[in-house]
Amino acid sequence: MRAISNAANYFAGGTLDRVAHRRRDDAWLREAMAASETRLLPFWQGKHLVHGPREAPRPAHIPATATWWRELLTADPVFLGLADGVAHFALDLSALPDPAQAAPLSALGAFVDLRSLSASLDPVSGNLLAVGRGLLLWHQRHRFCAVCGNPTRVENAGHSRRCVDKACDAVHFPRTDPVVIMLITDGDRCLLGRQPRFPPGFYSCLAGFVEPGEALEDAVARESFEEAGVQVTDITYQSSQPWPFPASLMMGFHARATTTELTVDGEELEEARWFERGWIRAHAGTESFMLPPRSAIARSLLDSWLYKP
Amino acid sequence: MRAISNAANYFAGGTLDRVAHRRRDDAWLREAMAASETRLLPFWQGKHLVHGPREAPRPAHIPATATWWRELLTADPVFLGLADGVAHFALDLSALPDPAQAAPLSALGAFVDLRSLSASLDPVSGNLLAVGRGLLLWHQRHRFCAVCGNPTRVENAGHSRRCVDKACDAVHFPRTDPVVIMLITDGDRCLLGRQPRFPPGFYSCLAGFVEPGEALEDAVARESFEEAGVQVTDITYQSSQPWPFPASLMMGFHARATTTELTVDGEELEEARWFERGWIRAHAGTESFMLPPRSAIARSLLDSWLYKP
Repeated sequence: MRAISNAANYFAGGTLDRVAHRRRDDAWLREAMAASETRLLPFWQGKHLVHGPREAPRPAHIPATATWWRELLTADPVFLGLADGVAHFALDLSALPDPAQAAPLSALGAFVDLRSLSASLDPVSGNLLAVGRGLLLWHQRHRFCAVCGNPTRVENAGHSRRCVDKACDAVHFPRTDPVVIMLITDGDRCLLGRQPRFPPGFYSCLAGFVEPGEALEDAVARESFEEAGVQVTDITYQSSQPWPFPASLMMGFHARATTTELTVDGEELEEARWFERGWIRAHAGTESFMLPPRSAIARSLLDSWLYKP
Repeated sequence: MRAISNAANYFAGGTLDRVAHRRRDDAWLREAMAASETRLLPFWQGKHLVHGPREAPRPAHIPATATWWRELLTADPVFLGLADGVAHFALDLSALPDPAQAAPLSALGAFVDLRSLSASLDPVSGNLLAVGRGLLLWHQRHRFCAVCGNPTRVENAGHSRRCVDKACDAVHFPRTDPVVIMLITDGDRCLLGRQPRFPPGFYSCLAGFVEPGEALEDAVARESFEEAGVQVTDITYQSSQPWPFPASLMMGFHARATTTELTVDGEELEEARWFERGWIRAHAGTESFMLPPRSAIARSLLDSWLYKP
């Protein structure tokens, strides 16, 4: 089936039908790989091949009838699924020193980072490239078996890897790291923070990885206290977003502060501050005060509070 | 801070203060390890040491003043955090052939599986053991670097591992696999399924792992269709639960079916069936119709629908 396409957050939803039952169907996959309409989506050192105008880029693909790409391949093609009935595969060409020097590739488009594409790329394509990015980055960092140290080989059309050592035979699946992200409010104020890596004037919601033995709500409470010294209650889920930079799954929450004095940890956050709703509305988007882009769940959490009826 | 202790689901909540900033504080950790009140929680081949009556077991611990356990240790002790101000560490003794033969250990209690403890162990202890189990199982299966195949060593008091190869130097964090679990309803009926491994007469909610590039809601829709052929809408989050068997994080949803004809995949589910609310209330708990235990989020999803006002 098609995934739901009306998802609130960028990178989610889309129209990709993953047809997971085809992943072990070698004959079907061989045929799909050779079909003239099939799309091969190249990926190079974290970037995707796109073409078209800068304000409306489109994913570029290598025609399935071409063969020159095979010698550029770093790893097995990964089967993403069907979009509009057409098979899509992701190709990792990261071993190529400079794709601009590879004539057949540079004629098709240019490699661009997905994060910078998210403002202009349509959401259906955004989801497609997010799936490919997530899977290929996982393969890049999981060539070996964490159980025994032997190499692993790709199976299941790129959706799992298996240890080559017969005695071990461990199967490894793509890794996804659950992250909670929360807008903490205190009446008409909300808490925003700055990570050291943020550009000047940029603020966002607090966030952190879920640890073993935690429910999402536990992680929201722990991270709020660890990063800013704030205790919270009324922790309510809003929505979620895949975030393949490299492997996060963001789960967005609203929470109400029960203490408001701030103690910033200084490591994960360099600053945390309470902001008035009216002040944010008046200043957001100016050079001295920037919020996350509309493609980020942090902004969706903020906007739902800033503009709630 | 203490985590929230009123969490709806077993294994979550608890009173453990993880004091993450202490994980790199070697002097503090050495002192904590030697303090007479410190608790060392032994773990053997997936089981925890418990003592006390069968209907009210308690986690057993090795006194911090003892030293005999050091030679039984498979891996570095893992610092869990503070509970009631007392430091707790988890010890992996899995290399021991038979703990019943190790006199100092067998005098302290018996090793029991956490799943079977969940009906009788208090929730605060349930959370504590879930944290330990999650971390120790992760260490067992991640002794080597997935990036380069070299061994990794424990750091951060057991909360990360680092590749011993200086050129690689990859840091690996505990892995948690996001899973969606959903109660699909159609008016007064709900959809339950049987996995091939379930005991006869046992039914539960549908569930599945979130894939790269999916929001939780996308995964609910995909898994409902893949496993039972059902399309769903009105996908709403209920609650979450850590599920360290071995590394899942369950996220519970309600969803409404828009198609009701069932096509069971036969692989993940051997059967799926619509059940009337009244019929479930009348038959649940009999030998021919069993539901998940109250400690499982599947039951919490079911009960909130079965008994909703």
